Amino acid sequence: MRGNVDLSKQINQWLLENKHDGIKLLQRLVQAGSTQGNEAKAQTIILNTLTDMGLDIDLWEPNGEELQKNPYFASSRSEFMGSPNIVGILRGKGEGRSIILNGHIDVVPAGDMEQWNIDPYSGMIKDGNMYGRGVTDMKGGNVALLMAMRALQALNINLKGDVIFESVIEEESGGAGTLASILRGYTADAALIPEPTNMKIFPKQQGSMWFRLHVKGQSAHGGTRYEGVSAIEKSMVVVDHILKLEKRRNERITDPLYKKIPIPIPINIGKIEGGDWPSSVPDLVKVEGRMGVSPEETMEDAKAEMESWMKKIGETDSWFTEHPVRLEWFGARWLPGAIEVEHPLVQSLSKNYQTVLNQIPTIEASPWGTDGGLLTKVGETPSIVFGPGVTEKAHFPNEYIVLDRVFEAAEIIALTLVDWCGVYDEGSL
Amino acid sequence: MRGNVDLSKQINQWLLENKHDGIKLLQRLVQAGSTQGNEAKAQTIILNTLTDMGLDIDLWEPNGEELQKNPYFASSRSEFMGSPNIVGILRGKGEGRSIILNGHIDVVPAGDMEQWNIDPYSGMIKDGNMYGRGVTDMKGGNVALLMAMRALQALNINLKGDVIFESVIEEESGGAGTLASILRGYTADAALIPEPTNMKIFPKQQGSMWFRLHVKGQSAHGGTRYEGVSAIEKSMVVVDHILKLEKRRNERITDPLYKKIPIPIPINIGKIEGGDWPSSVPDLVKVEGRMGVSPEETMEDAKAEMESWMKKIGETDSWFTEHPVRLEWFGARWLPGAIEVEHPLVQSLSKNYQTVLNQIPTIEASPWGTDGGLLTKVGETPSIVFGPGVTEKAHFPNEYIVLDRVFEAAEIIALTLVDWCGVYDEGSL
Repeated sequence: MRGNVDLSKQINQWLLENKHDGIKLLQRLVQAGSTQGNEAKAQTIILNTLTDMGLDIDLWEPNGEELQKNPYFASSRSEFMGSPNIVGILRGKGEGRSIILNGHIDVVPAGDMEQWNIDPYSGMIKDGNMYGRGVTDMKGGNVALLMAMRALQALNINLKGDVIFESVIEEESGGAGTLASILRGYTADAALIPEPTNMKIFPKQQGSMWFRLHVKGQSAHGGTRYEGVSAIEKSMVVVDHILKLEKRRNERITDPLYKKIPIPIPINIGKIEGGDWPSSVPDLVKVEGRMGVSPEETMEDAKAEMESWMKKIGETDSWFTEHPVRLEWFGARWLPGAIEVEHPLVQSLSKNYQTVLNQIPTIEASPWGTDGGLLTKVGETPSIVFGPGVTEKAHFPNEYIVLDRVFEAAEIIALTLVDWCGVYDEGSL
Repeated sequence: MRGNVDLSKQINQWLLENKHDGIKLLQRLVQAGSTQGNEAKAQTIILNTLTDMGLDIDLWEPNGEELQKNPYFASSRSEFMGSPNIVGILRGKGEGRSIILNGHIDVVPAGDMEQWNIDPYSGMIKDGNMYGRGVTDMKGGNVALLMAMRALQALNINLKGDVIFESVIEEESGGAGTLASILRGYTADAALIPEPTNMKIFPKQQGSMWFRLHVKGQSAHGGTRYEGVSAIEKSMVVVDHILKLEKRRNERITDPLYKKIPIPIPINIGKIEGGDWPSSVPDLVKVEGRMGVSPEETMEDAKAEMESWMKKIGETDSWFTEHPVRLEWFGARWLPGAIEVEHPLVQSLSKNYQTVLNQIPTIEASPWGTDGGLLTKVGETPSIVFGPGVTEKAHFPNEYIVLDRVFEAAEIIALTLVDWCGVYDEGSL
């Protein structure tokens, strides 16, 4: 049997020789776009790649009706026609540990186009970086998974355990794609999700959920605006109140994995909309946001805390005593998840990181929810998050990835698959 | 010739006898709705009324292409197909002063339906009030004009000067209807506009104009929101900054006509919209509002003051030094206007108010722009605003008018027409 260092060299060599192929695949995935509802084109590219690799393929459109019956379902839509999930299985020879390699294909919208210096769907390469919406979150990670599997295939390394590659929809909207995969029977002894962690290892994943606040005002003609009450001014009080809740909640976080994170479990206000005429005092503003949930609390605890906090806003401004803010939970939701730092998958990943990069990895808690929460809680599949993308560029204009990181991640992941799944060696004994 | 008190009694009597007719007309106008682009139904009711009165009628759709060439044109649209203006002229016998009676037929949207206790287009009557969008702003005023003219016709009072009744579109969007009437040749020795003044007399009219502010942030994933800059939080700084400008501008107002008005020339923030994903830090918020312009300043002065004020916002928050707020003037605009308190039309209106109501009228400056600015500046037709509507219910949910006020206004206006236009009496000399 080949030694680990020897194997590392061979994998590294293969990845070097096939780097152009990997970059080309990533560029095509970026160019295919794949915002919610528009995933089919990118999934077709994945399908072709998995077919070329000779994997056992399962492609299906999640059944919205069935999903809605599941208590863990959360999405802003209930119909997934034209938005398929794909699973490709590299069958093991038996008796090894199985692993799910999970990556989402959906991307968030590009946002304000004025802030992009390039077409967000160009996949332009400059100075070793590739640019575009989704390149970091998380198509670069998905390509790292595929290149790791292809390297093992090319080097005739037969694993004992199954490697289940999943290209799922809906992660950005609450994980309906991964939930559908779990309900279809895809679970394993562990899972690895290459979300953009800046090559950090995240054994803990923050959960999160979306909320909507309805802030009331009282309309009047703008010329006599003192006769009305501006829902826009009142929404400013509400945003302030939410920021205070965020502060309280974060002061409680003592987990050392969160030590270096400025705001461990942020509450993000992402959308605002209100009023319908410049010359009228606005009487309704809707605010939408995302509440971070720590791995140490339940979604229900977090919800209850926000609900009771919003009831207290009348103490700050008596307007709200008569006109309470309506709080609504809607759309996406990501369960928090955690595995022990001592878990063998964390240990293997950490060791291989050192082999490939010759330095000690950073182990932290994730600043966002991932599909790892669903895999852990619903699929009983302990999950770890580790990927090549640039954390601070996720959901950002001019999103990019450092291409070298994609192939370093691929090498670390390939070695970890060998450790985890075990190698079947006919000639050995 | 009949004396004034005698005439007042006859007009009063006629209005009393025909009150039911007037109420029915107002109710039908309210039920017809007439938000921007939907004025045709209400204008048809006006057309039928003017036809029954035997007036010289002119009905036309304003020519958007032609209007756009005029520097005083301001609207959120440039096409007026299906949105006609109507003018009906009661020809005088000659040698008298002419007068324009101008009322707009368009109404603002109903807004948040949850805040209405009734269907906004019901025209429901309860305890002597009629309810509905536009009943106060300003269909009640328009009916007062028509009833005043009908009373004079019924009593065979022949005026010397022309009375030009105008039912115009687009007042709520910047006066394109009245501008089109002026450009078509409709000017006069004076104009009266029965906007909802609570029966106060407004010789001065505040101008106003719409603006849009583009507030930049920097996007990031909501879970690492500290990597981004929230355009929603920055828009709160912008709203505060605007409120300070409003304060400065209003501290300068010393005109006694504004003495009792809490904020003589308000800046109203009417709309807000920004962000496109609850889990992303919003990178752009657009804020729309309406800036009041005092009769003592020009639109250009007011614009320049706002522009230089917005440039100063970097002193409050250095973010704006690198990311200045973009200020845009768009859509509607109403010129300020003023006539002397000593003007004979003000004096006549004031005298007739005392005759009819046995009390001294309040003379103030208007809290909003009206088409009087255009009539004064572009049409060289000195304008006064006086009407039966409830000022504080304009643009408000559950808008209503006190029906008795409509007929009191009609009586005062009828007597004022007699004074202003003069009576032609065949038998006299």
